Amino acid sequence: MYEFTAPFQQPAGSPIRELFKYLGEPGMISFAGGYPASDLFDVEGLDAAATRAYQAPAQCLQYGPTDGLPSLKAQLVQLMARRGVSCAPDEMLVTTGSQQGLDLILRVLVGPGDLVLTEQPAYPATLQALRLQQAKVVTIAVDRDGLDVAHLANLLASGEVSRPRLLYTVPTFANPTGATLTRERRIALLKLAVQYRFLIVEDDPYGDLRFSGEPIPSILALTSEVAGSRDWVVHFSSLSKIVAPGLRVGWTIAPAAITRRCVIAKQTVDLCSAPWTQAIAAEYLADGALERHVPTIVAAYREKNHALCRALRAALGECIEFHAPSGGMFVWARIQGLDAAALLARAIEQKVIFVPGNAFFADKADASSLRLSFAAPDVPAIEEGVRRLKRAYDAAVGTSV
Amino acid sequence: MYEFTAPFQQPAGSPIRELFKYLGEPGMISFAGGYPASDLFDVEGLDAAATRAYQAPAQCLQYGPTDGLPSLKAQLVQLMARRGVSCAPDEMLVTTGSQQGLDLILRVLVGPGDLVLTEQPAYPATLQALRLQQAKVVTIAVDRDGLDVAHLANLLASGEVSRPRLLYTVPTFANPTGATLTRERRIALLKLAVQYRFLIVEDDPYGDLRFSGEPIPSILALTSEVAGSRDWVVHFSSLSKIVAPGLRVGWTIAPAAITRRCVIAKQTVDLCSAPWTQAIAAEYLADGALERHVPTIVAAYREKNHALCRALRAALGECIEFHAPSGGMFVWARIQGLDAAALLARAIEQKVIFVPGNAFFADKADASSLRLSFAAPDVPAIEEGVRRLKRAYDAAVGTSV
Repeated sequence: MYEFTAPFQQPAGSPIRELFKYLGEPGMISFAGGYPASDLFDVEGLDAAATRAYQAPAQCLQYGPTDGLPSLKAQLVQLMARRGVSCAPDEMLVTTGSQQGLDLILRVLVGPGDLVLTEQPAYPATLQALRLQQAKVVTIAVDRDGLDVAHLANLLASGEVSRPRLLYTVPTFANPTGATLTRERRIALLKLAVQYRFLIVEDDPYGDLRFSGEPIPSILALTSEVAGSRDWVVHFSSLSKIVAPGLRVGWTIAPAAITRRCVIAKQTVDLCSAPWTQAIAAEYLADGALERHVPTIVAAYREKNHALCRALRAALGECIEFHAPSGGMFVWARIQGLDAAALLARAIEQKVIFVPGNAFFADKADASSLRLSFAAPDVPAIEEGVRRLKRAYDAAVGTSV
Repeated sequence: MYEFTAPFQQPAGSPIRELFKYLGEPGMISFAGGYPASDLFDVEGLDAAATRAYQAPAQCLQYGPTDGLPSLKAQLVQLMARRGVSCAPDEMLVTTGSQQGLDLILRVLVGPGDLVLTEQPAYPATLQALRLQQAKVVTIAVDRDGLDVAHLANLLASGEVSRPRLLYTVPTFANPTGATLTRERRIALLKLAVQYRFLIVEDDPYGDLRFSGEPIPSILALTSEVAGSRDWVVHFSSLSKIVAPGLRVGWTIAPAAITRRCVIAKQTVDLCSAPWTQAIAAEYLADGALERHVPTIVAAYREKNHALCRALRAALGECIEFHAPSGGMFVWARIQGLDAAALLARAIEQKVIFVPGNAFFADKADASSLRLSFAAPDVPAIEEGVRRLKRAYDAAVGTSV
């Protein structure tokens, strides 16, 4: 047999995907997935877009440009303009979900041993990608206002952290914490990036999914307020959470020199993302369907979030601690008196699952933390799921038979 | 500005993609692309498959399993059975074109400085991928019967080549040479792989496109004839050349332990290839449309290949040397008396392009070589293109005003 060498000698699969085996069980209620709600997909609108796209079948069926179909890029440039960002086509690369953008960026910018900063808790696939590149990872804690930028400033000023290549963050409705970085912290972070010459890698799949409070511009949009900062921001976004993941349409906006290197890497990686679904996405956006449909998703997630937070407070009261998010798909919580992994074991018996927080830490994991996604289940399922969680909690702490 | 470090300090883009800028020129005839003929796509059959696939919209629109939609994998297992290969689902991974299979395999198997063998001339993206992984590359020459396996055996026996991790080859209708490895050499290569414990990475996108001669089983299919060899073969295939590249559906068949590592890497790379086009591909295959349609492509390529070879002999006679291929999309030739790059400069003036052979060499390039693809142009364009090539040749060697 083939003998593997590092880093694949002992591969660690996604701890979240490990939970997928429970999804098929009859009656299981899942707060575990990071999937958007299937019943909120704009099935008819996408069908119509697909029909229009196939009126130019060769564009759907032939290879496309590595950086993305021009028709789609033109629509995405307009979408970014509506989000307050002006960008040129040569700064933009269409990717197979924003996930591929992160992979490409890390491949062209980060070598073994390079210092990379990431918020923590963080998206597990990011942590896995950093391991794959054998980066040296330093974590920066997140509080309810997002990344602790003041702490980062101290680390940089003291020299405790020196010459990082980049910092990864999901500043708006973060996965897993649901937290949103304040405007003040965004500006401060941009100033640090300019001063210490590191890239801010802003992952923004959820930004349109705000269901309460005032919008805050993306870090990329705020570069106009900090001189020289545009050179230091890489921005990912995606249609996965606002249209459909099955399109696998994400995009990266970066300084042209970085984008060019990503395009060259992508020639080697997969030549191009599926032109057929790119063409469908272009038609969908050109029709204005996105703007018409997003409010439907936002209204549904507002209601589901409210249901989850209300039910958690009613059922678990002081035994659980969390901040209700202003958007996105996730509630991040800490459970009192036991580990989330122990709670999960009991929860599975009760036919409800969530993701224990350990999965989101590169170091110093908070074993009491857990992530609950309200996106997929409907309100009655959310309420029943929390009742089951309560029974699981009682069983785990021994206050119930 | 961000300062890049190796290996992306001086990125080398694809030399073939450099030629794309000429494709848009009015009246340009291209023998340069590796694209299949757009006018041979089964537009109606794929439209019907898309309609059937969308009857289960959530499967098209939601995230799918990282290793591929089960419905597609079931069809691909059947397709491989028709090609004489028995494989289990856990040996198979669906990828974004077979290109991604190569990228994943190299990422999980090859580290900086690892010794990798490749046929030469070779597919340029493979050479670029090996550079990206910083592999140490040793090339093995190809003759009209494919890879020179006897020479490889000598290198291994003498210790001149020691402990390679893997060998990359396109054994059937190779890109760029059009050559097909003989059955005897395939068996000999499998024995070497077992003896010296290296993986044969068999890239097989063109195998179904035979227009003359007797079929030869793939290297993977022949593992049944060499004890222990199945552990040492990784096989890529794709729908890009026999259905449509725009689906971006390729697949990898490898020992389960290797496949598992590729799946984990793919979780990080892009989570999954586009489920929507996977679902369309599954419906297309389930309908038997592939078997009905491939003969149409083969008949067209037979005629185009014949037209190109006949025209080249008639126009250039002794000034060009080539072997007519038995399938695939490419004629590999050597031009007498000048470099192919010099010919290309004159050819562009005459509004015809091809790929100079240099692009396909990692070392010791044969400057007189060139690759001509007959797949995309129709027969009249092929004949006119060769007339232009003749004028370019005459201009370049100075026998014409």
